[in-house]
Amino acid sequence: MSFQKLDELGHKLEALEHALAILGADEATHMAVGGGEKRADAMAALAGMLHRQASAPEIADWIDAAENEDLNDDQRIALAEFRRHYTNLTCLPAEFVERQTSQRLRSEQLWRDLREKNDWKSFRPALEGIVSLVREEAAMRASVLKLDPYDALMEQYDPGNRAADITPVFDKLKTFLKDFAPQALAIQEQRDAKRPRKPLSGTYAIDKQRALGLAMMGAVGFDFTHGSLSVSHHPFCGGVPTDVRITTRYKTSDFLSALMGVLHEAGHALYEQNLPHQWGHWPLGRARGMAVHESQSLFVEKQLGRNPAFWRWALPVVERELGENWSLDDILPWVHHVERGLIRVDADEVTYPLHVILRYELEQELVSGRLEVADLPEAWDAKMHEYLGLSTLDNPADGPMQDVHWPGAAFGYFPSYTLGALMAAQQWAAFEKVHPAANSEISEGHFEAVNDWRRTNIWSQGSRYSTPELIERATGEKLDARFFIEHLEKRYGQA
Amino acid sequence: MSFQKLDELGHKLEALEHALAILGADEATHMAVGGGEKRADAMAALAGMLHRQASAPEIADWIDAAENEDLNDDQRIALAEFRRHYTNLTCLPAEFVERQTSQRLRSEQLWRDLREKNDWKSFRPALEGIVSLVREEAAMRASVLKLDPYDALMEQYDPGNRAADITPVFDKLKTFLKDFAPQALAIQEQRDAKRPRKPLSGTYAIDKQRALGLAMMGAVGFDFTHGSLSVSHHPFCGGVPTDVRITTRYKTSDFLSALMGVLHEAGHALYEQNLPHQWGHWPLGRARGMAVHESQSLFVEKQLGRNPAFWRWALPVVERELGENWSLDDILPWVHHVERGLIRVDADEVTYPLHVILRYELEQELVSGRLEVADLPEAWDAKMHEYLGLSTLDNPADGPMQDVHWPGAAFGYFPSYTLGALMAAQQWAAFEKVHPAANSEISEGHFEAVNDWRRTNIWSQGSRYSTPELIERATGEKLDARFFIEHLEKRYGQA
Repeated sequence: MSFQKLDELGHKLEALEHALAILGADEATHMAVGGGEKRADAMAALAGMLHRQASAPEIADWIDAAENEDLNDDQRIALAEFRRHYTNLTCLPAEFVERQTSQRLRSEQLWRDLREKNDWKSFRPALEGIVSLVREEAAMRASVLKLDPYDALMEQYDPGNRAADITPVFDKLKTFLKDFAPQALAIQEQRDAKRPRKPLSGTYAIDKQRALGLAMMGAVGFDFTHGSLSVSHHPFCGGVPTDVRITTRYKTSDFLSALMGVLHEAGHALYEQNLPHQWGHWPLGRARGMAVHESQSLFVEKQLGRNPAFWRWALPVVERELGENWSLDDILPWVHHVERGLIRVDADEVTYPLHVILRYELEQELVSGRLEVADLPEAWDAKMHEYLGLSTLDNPADGPMQDVHWPGAAFGYFPSYTLGALMAAQQWAAFEKVHPAANSEISEGHFEAVNDWRRTNIWSQGSRYSTPELIERATGEKLDARFFIEHLEKRYGQA
Repeated sequence: MSFQKLDELGHKLEALEHALAILGADEATHMAVGGGEKRADAMAALAGMLHRQASAPEIADWIDAAENEDLNDDQRIALAEFRRHYTNLTCLPAEFVERQTSQRLRSEQLWRDLREKNDWKSFRPALEGIVSLVREEAAMRASVLKLDPYDALMEQYDPGNRAADITPVFDKLKTFLKDFAPQALAIQEQRDAKRPRKPLSGTYAIDKQRALGLAMMGAVGFDFTHGSLSVSHHPFCGGVPTDVRITTRYKTSDFLSALMGVLHEAGHALYEQNLPHQWGHWPLGRARGMAVHESQSLFVEKQLGRNPAFWRWALPVVERELGENWSLDDILPWVHHVERGLIRVDADEVTYPLHVILRYELEQELVSGRLEVADLPEAWDAKMHEYLGLSTLDNPADGPMQDVHWPGAAFGYFPSYTLGALMAAQQWAAFEKVHPAANSEISEGHFEAVNDWRRTNIWSQGSRYSTPELIERATGEKLDARFFIEHLEKRYGQA
């Protein structure tokens, strides 16, 4: 009876989540510009209803009572995930959540304005307020979840992720990359000197680029009966598993940028489309977490989409859709382009992890109180200098003011990006081990086997296991940086 | 304090209505085909939340208590409309609403299937069930609202509309049309014989037709910062006042069909976009009713869009967008085409009212019990014969099975269509009286004055007055068929 109540609640919450997901995707794609204020009001009201219904006190009783009911296996694991969700949702008092929401909104608005003006001095007090709020939040979450404060923050994004496990993995990767990134850049320079690049400078009509994106999405397994592609200012994957909305943006001078965006978002979409439908209205039926989600997008974008084997198949498709003939030697320098830069979101797969590790290290210090916001610009600059040989001291907009995460109070999220890259490489290695034809199939445009492997090992599992368990069960071992390191060496370490 | 509670409730209900409106428009325009089932579940759950929140018993107390509070003028009329809404929403017991919803859904599904098969015999029992349900509903509404049963049904769609007022107006129109329709057809035949029509048989690319539609919408006043045009199987106007979604469908062989659809829906959209925003979260801030809404769409489509003066301005726009040169003598025979047919939705403005009056007369008989479903095919045929000289005896699919309204239990809705046409003509006449330059302005593409008149007299009034009051205040007299009759005589009665 109590499980039944949770099941019915699941349907109600799913309806509100459905509305929020579609309204959110619609806002970025089809909404008239003047519709924003009422849309924000409507979404805030729906989010409030969702939060109130999902955190109602009687749910705790239902969860406790359901433990003693005669449940089948699915229901039992669903119940555990109901409990995890409920605990994470209710471990902060309502008074705190309200204070946090308004402070976060104010600080994000301020950040948008002050980042543009490169004005760290005016932004600093706002970020100090946010960091103090985050410390408070981490302490409360830690006390309820019996975790270290930073782990308690990460727990929201990927259950089971612990700094004690992640730090050694990241340290190994960091040690490798500090040497490897300059090597990869030198190799690239020599190669470009020997064979100047064919410029990516045609004019690629947007409708043709769209057709190319659709062809590629379809080939890698995107189901057009349960999703669509449109345009937005920032690419995203939204909507619901039965109707996944992905977007890209087009530059007429460069078809690779939109295409890689499409492949990345299609990777997210494949995960959503292939989640276990029978659990769709339970927390158990959702994607496991942010790092796992990112592993799926990076799997399609990096492991598949930047694989030379992929381009053996893709070049004729590009020629068909865009009418331009590229050779592998023409395209791969662009597909594998490496560049040392200040901006995380513009980074390639070699340098990206260093941006993330820098943030991962600094945010732990900020949460623990070992670092204060006042000292952040110097701390950021020191690491930027050490990891990438660049300075941001006179440019805080591209230093500690670079991302929305911290002004938005989302501490503990950054590691997901690089964990996703590591997991994707580890999944590809595990797949290739049991399926030696992997590359040759991909060079012929066959993605069935690799998708079957991911469907079985990742997608169909929903939230059955914690993030580390899921990866260990799927790949046969704990998360290890060596698969990603080997992947980079193979792709970027050879002249 | 109690009015404050109603005000807050208004915001919550508006959020759910916003979600339902956007989800509904999205479903018909952008949803992936496989997303339908979850969308239906989500919308049903949201509609349930909306109904429960809008019909909660404590609202009755708030309304009563607010009567004794110190309210300003706006709040006082808002309160009256809160009460009207609440009464209409709660006058049926929940048990009945559930029974009605499921019976209506079943009957609509059956209708879709059996209409295609032209199978009246199998459909008849379902319609009998619906009619018996509607009689029950009408009796309950009548008893709460102290109205005649059929008036109580109409009251849902246009408050204040009474059969005792409408019937004499419709009778005058019917008497006129029974003679006038054959005359208009004869005049058309003579004209076509004298000057054979230039066929509407080019190939009009959809993107060009879309550009033409956008140009015309913009010209008649559609605000693209608060709305957009897309494609759907059946044209509609949906969304919310700050983001109105209108749609059309395109035939490459005929640009007039999509264009007239765009103008019709743009007429609905202008009403929504120009409703009083400050009342947006109160029932008072909504469009008055279905007949008034239809008067706004028909105003743009028929009074403006089929006005010869309009085409003096529009032809160069058509030439610019479609690259084809039409003269007034070429286009007007198509814009004013009259045809006697069986199908209401395909009818022109001369014959359309006869289709509606037939249904209006028959549904009153069905609700009162003076007519039984068993006798409906003969009764329909007799009127069809009398009004339009056509028979449907051997073709019930195009007779009493023609529309979704009756299988959907929407009795009392049909008169809205023709009331809208009459009101539109009466509004145009009232405007022209105070603004003799009306036609010459329109022939130059200036719609500011006519929109100002409608903004002042119709749009900005929201639900302040009952439908008959609104029309009388706007036009200076009660609804009268003579304006529409004069309009038809002028447009269709001259060789």
